[in-house]
Amino acid sequence: MSDVRLHVDQPLGPGQAVALSPDQAHYLVGVMRLGKGAPVVLFNGRDGEWRAVLTAAGKRGATATCEAMTRPLVLPPDLWLLFAPIKKARTDFIVEKAVELGVRRILPVQTRHTNSERVRQDRLQAHAVEAAEQCGATYVPEVADLTTLDRVLAAWPEGRRLYWCDETAAGRPVLLAPAEGPAAILIGPEGGFSGDEAAKLRARPDVVPLSLGPRILRADTAAVAAITLWQAACGDWR
Amino acid sequence: MSDVRLHVDQPLGPGQAVALSPDQAHYLVGVMRLGKGAPVVLFNGRDGEWRAVLTAAGKRGATATCEAMTRPLVLPPDLWLLFAPIKKARTDFIVEKAVELGVRRILPVQTRHTNSERVRQDRLQAHAVEAAEQCGATYVPEVADLTTLDRVLAAWPEGRRLYWCDETAAGRPVLLAPAEGPAAILIGPEGGFSGDEAAKLRARPDVVPLSLGPRILRADTAAVAAITLWQAACGDWR
Repeated sequence: MSDVRLHVDQPLGPGQAVALSPDQAHYLVGVMRLGKGAPVVLFNGRDGEWRAVLTAAGKRGATATCEAMTRPLVLPPDLWLLFAPIKKARTDFIVEKAVELGVRRILPVQTRHTNSERVRQDRLQAHAVEAAEQCGATYVPEVADLTTLDRVLAAWPEGRRLYWCDETAAGRPVLLAPAEGPAAILIGPEGGFSGDEAAKLRARPDVVPLSLGPRILRADTAAVAAITLWQAACGDWR
Repeated sequence: MSDVRLHVDQPLGPGQAVALSPDQAHYLVGVMRLGKGAPVVLFNGRDGEWRAVLTAAGKRGATATCEAMTRPLVLPPDLWLLFAPIKKARTDFIVEKAVELGVRRILPVQTRHTNSERVRQDRLQAHAVEAAEQCGATYVPEVADLTTLDRVLAAWPEGRRLYWCDETAAGRPVLLAPAEGPAAILIGPEGGFSGDEAAKLRARPDVVPLSLGPRILRADTAAVAAITLWQAACGDWR
């Protein structure tokens, strides 16, 4: 069985002692029945991945001490995912999949037809951390606060290509052309984009419409499919 | 709002009266508050999609009568999905996504490291029907009974290419070469394939190993990613 892999906030380095959170201590000691001397794997999204051992282990507190770096920090490609939040379980799913597939930032955006008006950023960020622990990533994408699509587009960084999953773009080639440089993927809400939003997107020179086949995809499916196509053509799956 | 879309087992044709199931009657009359004369959309996986109207509507029984075909039957490409069943929610998810993305058959396979020894075929088939109702498909993939991978491979049809999502195939190009003809995708269990299974797969001339990037993907993510890549290169997303 592979060692438990934990995300921590503290710096990691040779001999560095790291205080684990109460939840992590409970999991390691109470659930996994690990004691002093047990190996764990730590990462913090900045200093790579480290092999460590438990040097103190109680049910309410535990400390691990770093021994050696097992892997350096590897950033995912510079891809952002913008999506209109949907039902809780499917929103969680989108965040988990985006981390596994490899994105740099996750931005929930509010569109005209977005059902959900609130997003618990802290919960989604915790979900991203958990996905990173599971999938072996050394980096955790930042989950931004919910912002309106208009505001995100108004502050759009120059040179970042925006792949827009547009249900009305039928017939467009779905295989992405390999392209260098920063990119983003935009997934709409279940009700689609408003006419006004679509017109604004279509008018932007940095927007590339993307069609995802002849069937109607749910937003969570579309997110996974679009990131996959981008990773295979332009990202680190090449 | 778009009309309710229902899968039925009976034949569909001009003027054909179709008895809906008690569950469907309850949903239409009790939940959606529809009455006689209300429009519904019907499909059965064989006769295309039909516009119909409710000609009898009670809480325990309802009848719809076909008016006109709205879309012909469209088969998804001849792609099978083979996967080792995982936890219930993620297995359901794989079935839902396979229907949306477009596969012809879904085959749960038991491998050496498959955790789950039973699969409720009827439940998964009902899940496939529901996904087809939602995504606008006119066809419902058949979900096969759980069978061992050995048995499936022993009876493998000649000429059907098998894309094997092999975690150890790192470095293989991930972009599928366009290819004609029937195909299948094989997703392994969380514990990976056994050495014996991997050797058998590697020895087959009809097996194409497929790598899905540098991070570890969960089985459900791998299924969506692999079907997406196949659809974009070889299927009806082209």
